[in-house]
Amino acid sequence: MATAIVGFASEQMSASTNSMANCLVRIAEIEVYPEHLEAYLAAGRAVGAESVAKEPGVICIFPMQKKEQPTQIRIVEIYRNEAAYKAHLETPHFKKYKTGTLHMVKSLHLAPMQPLDAANMGLIFKKGTDK
Amino acid sequence: MATAIVGFASEQMSASTNSMANCLVRIAEIEVYPEHLEAYLAAGRAVGAESVAKEPGVICIFPMQKKEQPTQIRIVEIYRNEAAYKAHLETPHFKKYKTGTLHMVKSLHLAPMQPLDAANMGLIFKKGTDK
Repeated sequence: MATAIVGFASEQMSASTNSMANCLVRIAEIEVYPEHLEAYLAAGRAVGAESVAKEPGVICIFPMQKKEQPTQIRIVEIYRNEAAYKAHLETPHFKKYKTGTLHMVKSLHLAPMQPLDAANMGLIFKKGTDK
Repeated sequence: MATAIVGFASEQMSASTNSMANCLVRIAEIEVYPEHLEAYLAAGRAVGAESVAKEPGVICIFPMQKKEQPTQIRIVEIYRNEAAYKAHLETPHFKKYKTGTLHMVKSLHLAPMQPLDAANMGLIFKKGTDK
């Protein structure tokens, strides 16, 4: 049995409520051309992992594929604030992803989202999966 | 400056890859009647927080509202496995939410999702927001 893993500890949350409130949350709604799907999935996988690993301001980039419509991609993105998002756009890994996948993407809509419970948002991710 | 907060530590991930692979991930796509929106948001907020707090098998219930279309709700849900999801459906808090919001919901689609990087999914949420 694993130790309980705490993502955003509650004692941290009280101190960080303000910074959570500045978070930029959105869902990228992407349709990919079927003939480029495999290449797109690899590029999306890579940019998500690299952004989270290298950028302190990227809280979460969580790309998913609709099982019922595999060319439909949804990416949940959480940036610490507007500045972190702007910095992300200037990174080599994002630019490589963006230019490398332009021809693969049939449509893209960036939907700004309001978390229902922004103050406690971090608690949602408080648990590991190894129990 | 806060301590770095680790959500799913990498040393845990190697042990938990198998359980991550069994995770059930989806996005609930919900449209709410405008006249019931405020009541729905309160109910959605409550059931998300309560489920994550009380159920070990609920990794994440992250409800969001589209800023451009406020009656459009998206909930990212991650359950540890199929059994955890079935157990969730039997909880008093879920049943209360479900029966209490039935008349508020204009449409509901549960979209099963495949994370692009299931093996490293936890790393996406590895960071706190207080830096």
